Amino acid sequence: MSRYVISLGGNALGKDPGEQRELLKTVAYAILPLIEEGHSIVIVHGNGPQVGMINLAFNESDSTPDMPFAECGAMSQGYIGYHIQNAIMNILKKSSMHRNVTSVVTQVLVDPADPAFRHPTKPIGSFYNEAEAKKMAKEQGYDMIEDAGRGYRRVIASPKPIDILEKNSILALLEENHIVIAAGGGGIPVIQDERGYHGVDAVIDKDHASAKMAEIIGADELVILTAVDHVYLDFNTENQKKLKRVTVGELKTLLEHFKPGSMLPKIEACMAFTEATGRPSVISSLERAEDAFKRKSGTIIVSS
Amino acid sequence: MSRYVISLGGNALGKDPGEQRELLKTVAYAILPLIEEGHSIVIVHGNGPQVGMINLAFNESDSTPDMPFAECGAMSQGYIGYHIQNAIMNILKKSSMHRNVTSVVTQVLVDPADPAFRHPTKPIGSFYNEAEAKKMAKEQGYDMIEDAGRGYRRVIASPKPIDILEKNSILALLEENHIVIAAGGGGIPVIQDERGYHGVDAVIDKDHASAKMAEIIGADELVILTAVDHVYLDFNTENQKKLKRVTVGELKTLLEHFKPGSMLPKIEACMAFTEATGRPSVISSLERAEDAFKRKSGTIIVSS
Repeated sequence: MSRYVISLGGNALGKDPGEQRELLKTVAYAILPLIEEGHSIVIVHGNGPQVGMINLAFNESDSTPDMPFAECGAMSQGYIGYHIQNAIMNILKKSSMHRNVTSVVTQVLVDPADPAFRHPTKPIGSFYNEAEAKKMAKEQGYDMIEDAGRGYRRVIASPKPIDILEKNSILALLEENHIVIAAGGGGIPVIQDERGYHGVDAVIDKDHASAKMAEIIGADELVILTAVDHVYLDFNTENQKKLKRVTVGELKTLLEHFKPGSMLPKIEACMAFTEATGRPSVISSLERAEDAFKRKSGTIIVSS
Repeated sequence: MSRYVISLGGNALGKDPGEQRELLKTVAYAILPLIEEGHSIVIVHGNGPQVGMINLAFNESDSTPDMPFAECGAMSQGYIGYHIQNAIMNILKKSSMHRNVTSVVTQVLVDPADPAFRHPTKPIGSFYNEAEAKKMAKEQGYDMIEDAGRGYRRVIASPKPIDILEKNSILALLEENHIVIAAGGGGIPVIQDERGYHGVDAVIDKDHASAKMAEIIGADELVILTAVDHVYLDFNTENQKKLKRVTVGELKTLLEHFKPGSMLPKIEACMAFTEATGRPSVISSLERAEDAFKRKSGTIIVSS
């Protein structure tokens, strides 16, 4: 039996609750072979569009209070966690199998001195015109940037995860053979000071959170499921080259090939896990998940 | 060591995230004596105003999809669970104690044949005028009622909880001495059919869910913390009489004294737990919680 951390990209989730429920049936089906073999499984899901939707609903509504980003993230964990656990429960029932599935509300510790807080780069929420943006920057202290000619948006920090506050909860559930859904959306970002832990306006990259999770809980393998079946060099050109098996050392020389905010964080997350533990990481697509779990498909990242 | 289920009323939570964080410091402080003594604790919180707020935000926002009530409930579990676990973690840290705290996203099974579905009674969300209400009833199939002269509101069913799908998750965490937050807002209501479990538009009373929780996990005591320190007969009249210790049999003869939607469901929940298990229930206020845990304050409901 092996222990897997599966990182589930935003493409596996939905624009609205109906679509999300449908898409997650496919996800549940994709991980069924792993469940059948009795492996230990933690699922870390993204939440980009969903947390944006929640934040937007509170922004646009006249009768509700402003909802800080940490709280919106917590809501997205409840919302997406419910759909994932429900989908897995239902496919297990259909297959006459039983395994417990638990979603854990998860806080992830970040460092207030993380350089990301000085240079916020993650655009979130609605678009505004220049005057609105200036007003928000002045009155609310938001960092606003001009986003690709489409208007102004708020940007928040994307700091690195340094610890998972609910790690013992996750470990206790894995010990009892539960499938665990945790650190959704990268986790609720909290910093620690003399008053304790408290939420901050930030978004933790969910692939980095998956890598930290895999390291902390002693996973045998980190599997990142995304929209493409392999990592490619010169992706979407006639020279594109599929990477099948690659070492951390080789990847270090190739980093400039990968897009920030897209393939790069996934590769960095795999490198971090594999370098720290000597254990492999895999990047593949949801459609090829079964083969990826067996290392018959996907890009496999090894230590040497 | 005893096992407690603590049901936390809406008055212990907040209208907005800032207020809620503050109020929950008081809740964490109130249960600290129980934690210090090493008892086993499950917290079930209400979510009336919070789930209403989330539903309203999605209703009022132009750019976001409609959010069904089950999904809004799941969001409220993430939102409130995060604040409760954070508040408890911080007070433990301040007291130099360590205990793990875990919020579990919880689905609660209800019966599609529950009479509540034929007679929905729980008003939710915004007020509408008569024409709007008729349109919603016709186009969306909603049940709409006239609410005390203030306009029309949607009503949904409040069915009885019959099982807690994540009970094994809660038990596994209690086994490891975690403080568990579960079935928030009464749980995400799901029914079971040939396709599996799926969410329904309903709200489960959180006190009834607490009683079911206490029964299923083998609690020694159910403690309902609300806005008043005792149950009273002829409440708020000059003849009001405090109930200190009362049997289930006595309560059966007194039910007409208590307001539906207020004290009545709390009393029914205590009667259900105490009748099913022979173990006591207590109704008291957050301010008197410490004494209530020691049965020195509050209304104690016993089997005979």
